[in-house]
Amino acid sequence: MRFDIITVLPGLLESPFAHSILQRAQNKGKAEIIVHNLREYAHNKQKSVDDYPYGGGSGMVMQIEPFAKCIEKLKAERDYDEIIFMTPDGVTLNQSAANELSSKKNIMILCGHYKGIDQRIRDIFVTREISVGDYVLSGGELPAAIVVDAVVRLIPGVLNDETSALSDSFQGELLDAPVYSRPADWNGHKVPAILLSGDQTKIENWRHDEALKRTQERRPDLLE
Amino acid sequence: MRFDIITVLPGLLESPFAHSILQRAQNKGKAEIIVHNLREYAHNKQKSVDDYPYGGGSGMVMQIEPFAKCIEKLKAERDYDEIIFMTPDGVTLNQSAANELSSKKNIMILCGHYKGIDQRIRDIFVTREISVGDYVLSGGELPAAIVVDAVVRLIPGVLNDETSALSDSFQGELLDAPVYSRPADWNGHKVPAILLSGDQTKIENWRHDEALKRTQERRPDLLE
Repeated sequence: MRFDIITVLPGLLESPFAHSILQRAQNKGKAEIIVHNLREYAHNKQKSVDDYPYGGGSGMVMQIEPFAKCIEKLKAERDYDEIIFMTPDGVTLNQSAANELSSKKNIMILCGHYKGIDQRIRDIFVTREISVGDYVLSGGELPAAIVVDAVVRLIPGVLNDETSALSDSFQGELLDAPVYSRPADWNGHKVPAILLSGDQTKIENWRHDEALKRTQERRPDLLE
Repeated sequence: MRFDIITVLPGLLESPFAHSILQRAQNKGKAEIIVHNLREYAHNKQKSVDDYPYGGGSGMVMQIEPFAKCIEKLKAERDYDEIIFMTPDGVTLNQSAANELSSKKNIMILCGHYKGIDQRIRDIFVTREISVGDYVLSGGELPAAIVVDAVVRLIPGVLNDETSALSDSFQGELLDAPVYSRPADWNGHKVPAILLSGDQTKIENWRHDEALKRTQERRPDLLE
């Protein structure tokens, strides 16, 4: 699976893609993540990619030309399943959208910055607008990293059995039960005795009850 | 405002905190963001911070001792308004939570990894559990960066007037209207004529209508 990410801040995305599961997925050849510097597609000497908004108002708007040039170059090289724009007014990302995206081959992600991007980019090129949540961030870079992380870990062969994505929260209908590890007693704070009992049936029942209790308390909407 | 972030992957957070608004906020002295390597608080030679879960099952669990050591050291140095654990079963972050957090002084953020963290860490130390959305990620690092970004840009003096956070989506009750910049005609795709009219009243009315229309189409829940 291949991701092409277009941004004015390619450096911001360096370390998230160079660690942990995203690094291993790339080393294993399961994912290619290419970050493109939008400024290289600027048409002026100053390499500026933004300008004042038509109609006035605060903030700068990212112009259509650099994005169009970069998108058209990439589209000439391969077909894209989706051209995603990260925006707080997009459709909120959830686990089923991540599952669906993990079956795609080529995904382009556009990161906005400043006040926003020229609406024509969204109208002409973008196939899907995704939000990671109802909050405003400095740009689309961290949201793009979130999408890549959520999706890449679902590609078969990326996680090993030990960390299988199948037992994650939101893959079943319940949140996870509490987990514990050594020591069994930390300054008087003890691990629930049942987990030390060795009785696997009782342990599984306890975990199911705890997962249900946590879901009822925290996310009753998941049970509806 | 000060953030202390505890993680097994400090390198992953390097570039997000070294660019754009988060970098400027630190340079201006408006925010201090300190990333702590949890492995430095490991109690064994191998610097391991995880172990098998009690009761069996897949995945490794982050142990209480290294977290406790790091948290207790930091708490001895200053008071913390919140000790936040990033987890998909936490309370979902939204703009009003970001607003509220931006008035705090010292915030600690714990990043989980692997299967999860020992429940006792959550019970004993954590004051608040936050999720960035209903999707599973490789760890709490990107979510921690999201929280820091959403909060720091709200600290007075971090953004300049041009990029004022007050006109952002979710600060009012409407999504943003479409924005446009030069050229007025790109390959036959034209900017709406009203934005070129110079009639500021008409432009503001158009923007309000477009913002309302977009909100009705995309997020009718925000109007309820």
